[in-house]
Amino acid sequence: MAEQNNTSEQANKEKSGIPENVVYVGKKPAMSYVLAVVTQFNNGAKNVKIKARGNTISRAVDVAEISRNRFLQDVHVENIAINSEELQNEDGTKSKVSTIEIVLSR
Amino acid sequence: MAEQNNTSEQANKEKSGIPENVVYVGKKPAMSYVLAVVTQFNNGAKNVKIKARGNTISRAVDVAEISRNRFLQDVHVENIAINSEELQNEDGTKSKVSTIEIVLSR
Repeated sequence: MAEQNNTSEQANKEKSGIPENVVYVGKKPAMSYVLAVVTQFNNGAKNVKIKARGNTISRAVDVAEISRNRFLQDVHVENIAINSEELQNEDGTKSKVSTIEIVLSR
Repeated sequence: MAEQNNTSEQANKEKSGIPENVVYVGKKPAMSYVLAVVTQFNNGAKNVKIKARGNTISRAVDVAEISRNRFLQDVHVENIAINSEELQNEDGTKSKVSTIEIVLSR
């Protein structure tokens, strides 16, 4: 599950040319994403974007807070933006989902 | 459950003298809190704070987005802050919980 997810995230990155310093928060435990954030900072990133939508928004906030309080004391919250996206359901109807983007900076 | 929640929210407000233009998001459907936000703006509030912690953070973002996109087109997101609070569990241990505060302004 973790590996499958990982692969599809990487495929996504390659397809859309998303820069590497974005962490998409999904349904895995928060610590998986904290590890991704910490790794990117340790690899020299000056800032990391944590993105999530729908129910995983709470987890994205946990990821930001755990990263900054427990592992990266020199990192601060640079910006937080919320927005809405329209999703097409399987039956063709559309529904709106909230999104969040938290930028952490060193 | 919903009523119990309500009562404790009101007790909190009275205890700490919190100003009226704060909406605490709990486990009720998002529209209950949207109604509270819209009512406060209609009563003349210049800004309303939407607060939540833990799993209800996602719902707080929904409340802000629905309020501003569907009901209050002249209102914008003034500020978003995230933080951590320490909670004492029933067995005496402590655990951290993330919080969010979204300020909407007219």
